[in-house]
Amino acid sequence: MTGALAVGIAGLGTVGAGVVRLLADHAALIEARAGRKVTVVAVSARDRARNRGVSLEGLRWYDDPVALAADTKVDVVVELIGGADGPAHDLVMAALAAGKPVVTANKALIAMRGSALGAIEGASIRFEAAVAGGIPVIKALREGLAGDRIAGFAGIFNGTCNYILSRMRAEKLDFATVLADAQAQGYAEADPSFDIDGIDTAHKLAILAAIAFGREVDFGAVHVEGIRGVSALDIAFAEELGYRIKLLGIARATDAGIETRVHPAMVPLAAPLARVDGVNNAVVIEGDPVGQIVLQGRGAGAGPTASAVVADLIDLARGRAAPMLGVAPQALARRAAVPMAAHRGAYFLRLMVVDQPGVIADVTAVLRDHGISLESMLQHGRSPGDAVAVVLVTHVTQEAAMAAAITRLAALESVQVPPALIRIETA
Amino acid sequence: MTGALAVGIAGLGTVGAGVVRLLADHAALIEARAGRKVTVVAVSARDRARNRGVSLEGLRWYDDPVALAADTKVDVVVELIGGADGPAHDLVMAALAAGKPVVTANKALIAMRGSALGAIEGASIRFEAAVAGGIPVIKALREGLAGDRIAGFAGIFNGTCNYILSRMRAEKLDFATVLADAQAQGYAEADPSFDIDGIDTAHKLAILAAIAFGREVDFGAVHVEGIRGVSALDIAFAEELGYRIKLLGIARATDAGIETRVHPAMVPLAAPLARVDGVNNAVVIEGDPVGQIVLQGRGAGAGPTASAVVADLIDLARGRAAPMLGVAPQALARRAAVPMAAHRGAYFLRLMVVDQPGVIADVTAVLRDHGISLESMLQHGRSPGDAVAVVLVTHVTQEAAMAAAITRLAALESVQVPPALIRIETA
Ligand SMILES: NC(=O)c1ccc[n+]([C@@H]2O[C@H](COP(=O)([O-])OP(=O)(O)OC[C@H]3O[C@@H](n4cnc5c(N)ncnc54)[C@H](OP(=O)(O)O)[C@@H]3O)[C@@H](O)[C@H]2O)c1
Ligand SMILES: NC(=O)c1ccc[n+]([C@@H]2O[C@H](COP(=O)([O-])OP(=O)(O)OC[C@H]3O[C@@H](n4cnc5c(N)ncnc54)[C@H](OP(=O)(O)O)[C@@H]3O)[C@@H](O)[C@H]2O)c1
Repeated sequence: MTGALAVGIAGLGTVGAGVVRLLADHAALIEARAGRKVTVVAVSARDRARNRGVSLEGLRWYDDPVALAADTKVDVVVELIGGADGPAHDLVMAALAAGKPVVTANKALIAMRGSALGAIEGASIRFEAAVAGGIPVIKALREGLAGDRIAGFAGIFNGTCNYILSRMRAEKLDFATVLADAQAQGYAEADPSFDIDGIDTAHKLAILAAIAFGREVDFGAVHVEGIRGVSALDIAFAEELGYRIKLLGIARATDAGIETRVHPAMVPLAAPLARVDGVNNAVVIEGDPVGQIVLQGRGAGAGPTASAVVADLIDLARGRAAPMLGVAPQALARRAAVPMAAHRGAYFLRLMVVDQPGVIADVTAVLRDHGISLESMLQHGRSPGDAVAVVLVTHVTQEAAMAAAITRLAALESVQVPPALIRIETA
Repeated sequence: MTGALAVGIAGLGTVGAGVVRLLADHAALIEARAGRKVTVVAVSARDRARNRGVSLEGLRWYDDPVALAADTKVDVVVELIGGADGPAHDLVMAALAAGKPVVTANKALIAMRGSALGAIEGASIRFEAAVAGGIPVIKALREGLAGDRIAGFAGIFNGTCNYILSRMRAEKLDFATVLADAQAQGYAEADPSFDIDGIDTAHKLAILAAIAFGREVDFGAVHVEGIRGVSALDIAFAEELGYRIKLLGIARATDAGIETRVHPAMVPLAAPLARVDGVNNAVVIEGDPVGQIVLQGRGAGAGPTASAVVADLIDLARGRAAPMLGVAPQALARRAAVPMAAHRGAYFLRLMVVDQPGVIADVTAVLRDHGISLESMLQHGRSPGDAVAVVLVTHVTQEAAMAAAITRLAALESVQVPPALIRIETA
């Protein structure tokens, strides 16, 4: 047992204050698990006067977070400011340059700058909290499944989106209504774009995919769609067809390379992700020879996120280490990114058509022209002259064919509004 | 990067052959993840002539597994023979005495001898495969949730029992029929007692509870009941009441100490464990501040178990270590084991009674005498003179009161067969 691990924390918001509190509240337990004391010695945030609900007595204060890295009494820098650039990035670079290990919850930073950071000689950077909050999914992939070849994974990585979709379904409300209410209740940010447009999910997906497949973090390759276009109508159709709609982050190894995509998806009710509701996160990993592993838990919030940050600190205190992306930088695989147009899957397609003779024949002719075959078709009621919803579920086909067909379908005179398309997944 | 990690494997059955195969098939991937080659150099089993479906060419063979430990070329001993005593125990003791790390899948050994092994100065022993096969639950508890105070956990740890209960429910068959079929199909052993009487689950529970609460492995304290008494009738009643019957291993920290128990339990359909079917394992962990974490996957079989063994080998190759039970032996907590009589929970109670006036009054009077209040009562049809099933669901009460009440109920003249009791859990 060596001396205490001296921690410097930059950022004392939701997560930072949570970490200070956890290290204090569970000090004895953490000392036993870490084999030594883990003690906060210095902190940084913008507003020194702000009450954060935790005691900062006896801790050195820095207005400039970068100064934390230079504090000779600080053994490890915990970055909980956020953002891929600016003070968070400056601090992490300064800490690594000073040879100090870094622990962070910053998914934007790792997704955007992960490869550059990982390439820094001797860099020690841990970020379990950046993906799926309290679920130790990075540890599971990088260590627990280290003997497995990962075929792919699919997950619910954004609690805000999952909360909104869960409430839309349960209460049969539309997106705008639930979003406004979620904002009022603090489940969604005032500027919700980061969450609902899928960017946050894409950050996490890019990080996990790099670890799963042992290759560079490639945020740019991720196909990203959010949940703004998910309608109450399609949620109801999903229900009728035995699906739930979830915003998924999906990564798959195919013969052509690695496919990474974020979009709303229909998931069969019996699949592990279908019943993950509210602010929960979950991920289904397919590995050889382990088979299917499912991990579920709280993906955000002060407690779950602090749990992951402190686990990283305990790993550090115990000297447990792994290369940032599971393998040494020079061992990272070069695997092509598969463009979305090459994706193959089944599709849910909803058209609003004028209910008149010949419309279905026109629609199915377009699909046939693009080699798309149908598994089922659904149409409710009839109202001659009015627009009625026609739902088509396809067999496995290629995204490019689907996109071309949709362009033609949208141009049909009998098709009233842009067709709605939701991909069908089996996870 | 140092030289190869030289592995000696004793036991080349389902798991041992699986490990040899995985190390060969994923050699390059494992080398990248481990930072060095992981190479089998020596093996031991009983029958040298037996075809195990894997190549043993170039490997030193030992008839006596204990001799593996003395092989100076062997860096790590992998024990895959099984059993708490005999050659498995001898081998592990010899390896530890020789200062060699041990990796094992042997839950009986760890459950029965874990505390003694952990107390050996400098002992390095890894056993991720011993609990829940391919699910990295030991790593999750010991490292991933190292900052959390664990309130408890509940899990499905035996695939054979879960398979039998799943089929009994889905096909409305009785226990004996499904067991016989499971044996014919290789899902259950010829001597199934170890699985169906709950012993295997209790081994795993004892191991996980020690890690979760940082105290000695206390197999003797586990209350153990198996699934022989689960009837098709009660499965049907469970269905009607919105429950599934699962064999659970449960550990909880209460004010009085640690409660550990294995028994069939009714789980509400909405709970994470209710829909875990077939040979799957799953565990629900409650931690502070992480909240609820669910881990699910294959709990046995060559592939999932080998995945866990190889993950342990990679940890070893990377120098990642943790104390056997999460904290140093001298830091283990002394926490009382709570006897089953002190357990508090809700109960499902089924009586077969003669359908005559006054019977229900007699039954409810007994419950009242023992301070047991009812949440609901269920009785189907009426057939005067014949035995009918009466189902009672209690509010939370104490096991001791319940046991006393059942003794009195069983003695009532109108009660035809011994009452069936199944505890209700919320996980
Ligand atoms: N919230 C979650 O549930 C969650 C979950 C997983 C990961 N994360 C990640 O954790 C990180 C922190 O998130 P959060 O929710 O805790 O954010 P937050 O509540 O907005 O807190 C940010 C903190 O950074 C400080 N800060 C901002 N700019 C600074 C500067 N220039 N110099 C020094 N300090 C500065 C702020 O100081 P003041 O307090 O003085 O303004 C504040 O304490 C982000 O990377 C986020 O993505 C969060
Ligand atoms: N099977 C699973 O899915 C699973 C899952 C988790 C954990 N485990 C644990 O893994 C261990 C191995 O299980 P298994 O299913 O692989 O067992 P198994 O198929 O019965 O294999 C046992 C092996 O041990 C060898 N052996 C027995 N006595 C020996 C002796 N005196 N000297 C040398 N070798 C001896 C046998 O040799 P021969 O082949 O020559 O007879 C055989 O190769 C057990 O502790 C079990 O609890 C198994």
